[in-house]
Parts: sequence; C-alpha cells; structure tokens
Amino acid sequence: MNVLLIGANGDIGTIAKVALSERNTVITAGRSKADILVDMADPKSVEAMYKTAGRVDAVVSTAGDAHFASLQEHTQETFMIGLRQKVMGQINLVLSGMEHISDGGSFTLTSGVLDRDPVPMATNAAAANGALGGFVRAAAIEMPRGQRINVVSPGVLEASLPRYGDWFRGHDPVPSDRVGRAYVKCVEGSINGEVVIVS
Amino acid sequence: MNVLLIGANGDIGTIAKVALSERNTVITAGRSKADILVDMADPKSVEAMYKTAGRVDAVVSTAGDAHFASLQEHTQETFMIGLRQKVMGQINLVLSGMEHISDGGSFTLTSGVLDRDPVPMATNAAAANGALGGFVRAAAIEMPRGQRINVVSPGVLEASLPRYGDWFRGHDPVPSDRVGRAYVKCVEGSINGEVVIVS
Repeated sequence: MNVLLIGANGDIGTIAKVALSERNTVITAGRSKADILVDMADPKSVEAMYKTAGRVDAVVSTAGDAHFASLQEHTQETFMIGLRQKVMGQINLVLSGMEHISDGGSFTLTSGVLDRDPVPMATNAAAANGALGGFVRAAAIEMPRGQRINVVSPGVLEASLPRYGDWFRGHDPVPSDRVGRAYVKCVEGSINGEVVIVS
Repeated sequence: MNVLLIGANGDIGTIAKVALSERNTVITAGRSKADILVDMADPKSVEAMYKTAGRVDAVVSTAGDAHFASLQEHTQETFMIGLRQKVMGQINLVLSGMEHISDGGSFTLTSGVLDRDPVPMATNAAAANGALGGFVRAAAIEMPRGQRINVVSPGVLEASLPRYGDWFRGHDPVPSDRVGRAYVKCVEGSINGEVVIVS
C-alpha cells in the first residue's frame, strides 16, 4: 500500500514509519523535513498535499500540537491551539482526504493517554484526545467507499521519557514495538471506529 | 446554593432548572430570555456575566451548539462551530469562572450520547462531546479551592423526541426526571471529574 504519513519526525511518527515501512511505501508529510510540506490547520495546504501525493491507500497522522499550561493560566487563545491544531488539523486530513484516497482505504489519527489518565497542565491535550475519540467513532459510520477510520491512543512512550518523563510521573511507559503494531493494525487490519489504546 | 444556569431555555436546561430549583436559587444566563445575557464563545461576555451574577456556588451549562451535517459536507468552517461553541464556549465558563465562584463550588457541563453511540450527521457533536469528557477528567485534578467539575452526558430526551426523534432511530429516550437528577448529583453531591451518563 501507499501510506501517507503526516508527522513522521516526532517520536510516535518515527516509530510508525519504521513499522509501516515493512510492507508499505511510506510517503512523509509535515511542516518540515518531509517529502511533502503541509500545514494541517490550513485546508488549502491539506488539499495541495493530496494532489501532490498521488495514489494514497492509507493516511496516518502522528501530528498535532496541544498547549500545555495550568488550567488557571489557560485562556481561550491558548486553549484553541489544541482544538485548531491537534483536533481540527487531523480532521482536515479526513475531510479533504476522503475523496482522494482509495476505495477501502483508511485514516489513522493519533490522540494519547491524557483524556483517560490525566496529568497536571494537560487539559488542552485531554480535550483534544477526547474529541478525536468521539470523532472517529461517529465518522466510522459515515465513511464512503469502504474506507475506515481509527485513532491510536498511546501512553507516554519509552522513547519520549527523556523529554516528557517529568510530566508523566508514575505512568507506565510504552515500548516502541507495541506503538508501531497499533499503527500496523489500523492500516493493514480491518478495524473501524476504534480508539486503539496502547498501554 | 446560588446556581448560575447557562442555557435554561433548551430542553435539557428546562429540566435542569426545575430539578435544581427545589433546593437552590437558580439564576439564568443565555443568549436570550435569561436573567443575564451572555455569549459563551466571547470571554469578555462571560467575564461580564460573572460580574453581574454576584455570589455563585455552582455553574451549570446546558448550552452549546454543534453543526449537524454529513461528514462529506463538513468543512473546517462548519466543523469549527462545535469546537468554538459547544467545547470552547463551555470551557470559557470554567476558565473565567474559577476565580469567581465559591470555595467548594462546582461546574457542571453538558455533552451527550453521540460520542459513545453515534448517529449519522453527528461527527461534530461527537467530537465536541468527547472533548468535554476529556476536559473535565483532566480539569478535575487542577481545580482550585476545593472546586469540582463534571459533565452530564444524556441520551436523547423523551421531551426532545418530537424534534430530534428522526435523528436517533432506535435510541432509548431518557425520561426528564432522570436527567434532572444527574444535574442535582453533580451540583449537590461530591463527585469530581466524572462523565455522568444518563441512559
């Protein structure tokens, strides 16, 4: 399959790319250092990405920012970052992509552990993750031409502990191979409308 | 207690108002026909509402629009309606309200069934509902001065069947008294960080 991977440079994207490359051709997209440059929060940029990409059978997103701050510090402006970037950005990939990808193709988005097992400073990511879970469950029953949609929700990665470990005190870190398999299950398997928890 | 109820004119708000009025003083706020006029999506309007309201012990929101359309019809513009109104609007009540409401006070938001039991045309509401669930779980661990936060997630109301029944084919309608009790539990009880499912 041709897999279009948005966000391949992050910790999760790096793992997904390795796992998916075993049996697929992976084309990368992102804000920098990618085969195709794209800003997910801009529908025109997303549309241009699909036109450049050619035939795509599966879209995998491991991209999308949220803003980490205490609840007291958050304003509408800071809180909208996660809603615009992590939620709307990933949903833009679906809204624009449905007409571009193959019959029976799939979308795999990425959320994370923080809506079900929160840590301080993470209300924006928690809201974004919850939104993506609700979205894929509802979108699954409306996908055209046999297309599927799922979201991978990994815990804090072992690979990310050096940077994020202090934020996730006491959380069980998730090995890379397990995260990679979640993306493989979504792309090469047949599930639809699932929140794939990797813990 | 003094309860500030935003969205008292809707089907859910009408029920919440009756149930909460049994043992509390309910002040209403909303875009029209309310004690205090407010636009939740405008932080300045929300701040003005709290200044007008005086002492508030509990904030209950039964307000927040989402846009119903097929996944194919949605654009970033239409999808942002639910993220700006139902998600950000209700979260604005919390961000602005924490410093205004009493020690040990509470926030009760409203989501709905569509993120866990979707129907066609409802991806925007499903995403909004999921976001609110994730938000309250994470916000609960950061609330100041013993304040609490929960979200009520009711199924389609018996009272709403004449208008919405066609959208919710086969869904069990929820009696009004059960919905009312969910708001009473959140306001007069002690739960925190819960998605209170009313089915």
